[in-house]
Amino acid sequence: MSNPYFDEYENLEVHELMLKDRPRQQAYCNAILANKDKFKDKVVLDVGAGTGILSAFCAKAGARLVYAVEASNVATKIALDLIQDNGLTSIVKVIHSRVEDFVLPVSSERVDIIVSEWMGFYLLHEGMLGSVLQARDKFLKEGGLMFPTECTIFVAPCSVPSLFDYWQNIDGIKMDSFATKLRAQKSSRPEIAQLDPNNLLHEGVVLHWMNLLDVDMAELEEIRFKDVVAAQKSGNHQGFCIWFEVLFPGDEAVTLSTSPFAPETHWKQCVVVLPEDSCETLEEKAPIAFEISMLRNSSDMRKYNLEVELLDPNIEEHPVPCSCHMTKCILTEAHLKTMNA
Amino acid sequence: MSNPYFDEYENLEVHELMLKDRPRQQAYCNAILANKDKFKDKVVLDVGAGTGILSAFCAKAGARLVYAVEASNVATKIALDLIQDNGLTSIVKVIHSRVEDFVLPVSSERVDIIVSEWMGFYLLHEGMLGSVLQARDKFLKEGGLMFPTECTIFVAPCSVPSLFDYWQNIDGIKMDSFATKLRAQKSSRPEIAQLDPNNLLHEGVVLHWMNLLDVDMAELEEIRFKDVVAAQKSGNHQGFCIWFEVLFPGDEAVTLSTSPFAPETHWKQCVVVLPEDSCETLEEKAPIAFEISMLRNSSDMRKYNLEVELLDPNIEEHPVPCSCHMTKCILTEAHLKTMNA
Repeated sequence: MSNPYFDEYENLEVHELMLKDRPRQQAYCNAILANKDKFKDKVVLDVGAGTGILSAFCAKAGARLVYAVEASNVATKIALDLIQDNGLTSIVKVIHSRVEDFVLPVSSERVDIIVSEWMGFYLLHEGMLGSVLQARDKFLKEGGLMFPTECTIFVAPCSVPSLFDYWQNIDGIKMDSFATKLRAQKSSRPEIAQLDPNNLLHEGVVLHWMNLLDVDMAELEEIRFKDVVAAQKSGNHQGFCIWFEVLFPGDEAVTLSTSPFAPETHWKQCVVVLPEDSCETLEEKAPIAFEISMLRNSSDMRKYNLEVELLDPNIEEHPVPCSCHMTKCILTEAHLKTMNA
Repeated sequence: MSNPYFDEYENLEVHELMLKDRPRQQAYCNAILANKDKFKDKVVLDVGAGTGILSAFCAKAGARLVYAVEASNVATKIALDLIQDNGLTSIVKVIHSRVEDFVLPVSSERVDIIVSEWMGFYLLHEGMLGSVLQARDKFLKEGGLMFPTECTIFVAPCSVPSLFDYWQNIDGIKMDSFATKLRAQKSSRPEIAQLDPNNLLHEGVVLHWMNLLDVDMAELEEIRFKDVVAAQKSGNHQGFCIWFEVLFPGDEAVTLSTSPFAPETHWKQCVVVLPEDSCETLEEKAPIAFEISMLRNSSDMRKYNLEVELLDPNIEEHPVPCSCHMTKCILTEAHLKTMNA
């Protein structure tokens, strides 16, 4: 019955890392406890409840009943005690089960709210969203709520000084050759790192947006995005920085952001580093044309293959208006201005 | 010929971590380049040269010849290029070998200086100092220098809030039971963490000091230290914090410190956490009696078994003078004051 994915969550240091991630904790805590009107007397399902802390928040927010469903043995090892120690056993029911195998006591019953912290690196890594969507389709009442309820993936062209420029001079020693081999060693997977916002060549565009109330499972198989963006500052284009934000329901609309502009989280950002011969020093307003694909790995559903292709900005269609320095875009922009004048 | 210890250093991310450790880099860079008079025209042996950066420093400091001996394949994969890219091939000879198997071209030859960055967690982890001392005995000239030349291990009783108090209230939820199990999971090894100096109950005492010019190999087998210290502030005694400092030769006597008071390094500190029933809330001036032993692991020479035993301060002999609040020590201190008056 052992499953490597769930086994990983038996390591309490993984939970330590998540629980010490203050932006993560604060977002869930605020989203739930600042919206008590939404939770009052409601039935909640916590998908992948882990230590049970989100279920405890829901109980404190006034939920009548919370199903804390957790597949790893953290359910029995940690969550049961946590619920008991906080005097919430009459509200929170800890269930040691995969959510796919879970059934509600009364089969016609539905829940009012699904709460889950399912996000992985670059949002989709770990592929846990599929389980949440299955739970939604099986258990969520018509008009029920999802916490979080929307998610957005962003992408921005960027510099990656920590893998390039940094190594040009280490205390007077040239280490470019080390940097080249370090990048080669790391090239099979994207770099998980916190970027300084100064390293972004563009503030970022929306790569993908999902409303969790109606997104379809099939949408998780393959995400493709193509765009042309104009560099908002000059710099070395060495990669693409990917991050996500999730939004919670409620009048106090809480957002959890993993952007380089937001306080660091344990997700940091996901940086796809370009091969050296694709790197380029760009001027402000230089167009960057690219296509990104996230394809679910056919042999491991919990992983994605991230691919970035640089395209030729002379061939690709630019958005209208486009603020890049190419003549056609300058003319279009001028024309639009005249029309608006 | 594969060796797990050296194989680990083939992972360039290990070198990335060390090279991005600014206090480490700056200490070696300053110790070598601010003491050019010591290096001018000298022959240097760099034990465990890694990427070769310390050898490059020595060459830049004026050394006539530097043997950069490195057992992992980083020698050929990285160091050779680094030396070439920095135009130092006439000075630095990269040798892909364990230093134990290395011989100088002329068997009667000796080196003027041994440079090495051999320190592991709590100084001795990795057991690389033994190789450095062997090299010293075989290759260092009478009157030669060691960089670094002295090392000191410190210990201080401390609080470990990140494993205890922190979990009493996570956004309104009691997680003490999680903390207990987290500590149990971690109890087989000391915690590598950066402590806030406020968590020290004492500024620290010297657990062990070594002069690398004359320390004997046998001294690395077993280090035992017993002491009674008086808490310099009140607090929860939950562990012992161990750190080290190394000192380099020269008029510009550079120190590399891994103390909680110094900027964070990749070594951080090593915290031996007490079992819950040994933890105690102490008043200022409360005596803490303990014995620490570091015994080289008999089945893996690169590891040590760290053991801490709490002793009874009513039985153990206190230092004289002792600033603890026990009557005998207050009387002794008063007596000493009278004598000095």
